[in-house]
Amino acid sequence: MAAQEVLELNQKLLSAIGAGDYATYEALCDPSLTCFEPEAVGHLVEGLDFHKYYFTMPSPAAAPATDVPKPHVLNTMASPHVRVIGDTCAVVSYIRLTQKLVGGAPVTVQAEETRVWEKKGDGRWVHVHMHRSLIKP
Amino acid sequence: MAAQEVLELNQKLLSAIGAGDYATYEALCDPSLTCFEPEAVGHLVEGLDFHKYYFTMPSPAAAPATDVPKPHVLNTMASPHVRVIGDTCAVVSYIRLTQKLVGGAPVTVQAEETRVWEKKGDGRWVHVHMHRSLIKP
Repeated sequence: MAAQEVLELNQKLLSAIGAGDYATYEALCDPSLTCFEPEAVGHLVEGLDFHKYYFTMPSPAAAPATDVPKPHVLNTMASPHVRVIGDTCAVVSYIRLTQKLVGGAPVTVQAEETRVWEKKGDGRWVHVHMHRSLIKP
Repeated sequence: MAAQEVLELNQKLLSAIGAGDYATYEALCDPSLTCFEPEAVGHLVEGLDFHKYYFTMPSPAAAPATDVPKPHVLNTMASPHVRVIGDTCAVVSYIRLTQKLVGGAPVTVQAEETRVWEKKGDGRWVHVHMHRSLIKP
């Protein structure tokens, strides 16, 4: 039950990232989120501002807004593993496959992800720690 | 209290790895340990056998046993962060610094590590999930 709920929330989180939907991302994350990822260049980063940066990047200045195509990104959890610990913790680990367009052509990139979720006192699961590492092709 | 206990166990685990002490390593790990690390080349590995392989490698055949110098390895957790979740889960994240000898000269390599610990019914903390990624110099 907890495993299924957290898996669905994790997919919702990845979909929010793919869609550039920061409001949903923020709602799913704890303000104290800790993170290892390639963008953090070897440092443990705390908080959401670091991640918000990518959601709020301006579009390329040269292209008028009407000409900017919608992003076409899909994040898939391949073979997800969920470890429920006690009543208040779940660890989701999987290979993340990201399909996106590069120069109009679809490419897939892959990463290892561990995402830790905590059930708060009000019964809501929030994302509290992530570790992402790239897999070279 | 839990944070300090888990930090000490995590250091004990890293020391066992540095010393090639599989008995201590095994005693600290759950048989269901899950793992992302470079050696697993993009796969989530379950269980201890994968890790035991490195503890039980034979010494280089060319050198007689008496000529093999003792390994001189030290693993340090730099700026460890501990997140305690409920009564039964702790997530430790840090940059792991490994000092070792290469051709007789000391070198330091660094990696990002997330290690998840679970408190079992008997009150014993065991290591249940790890995620390690290398930081390029």
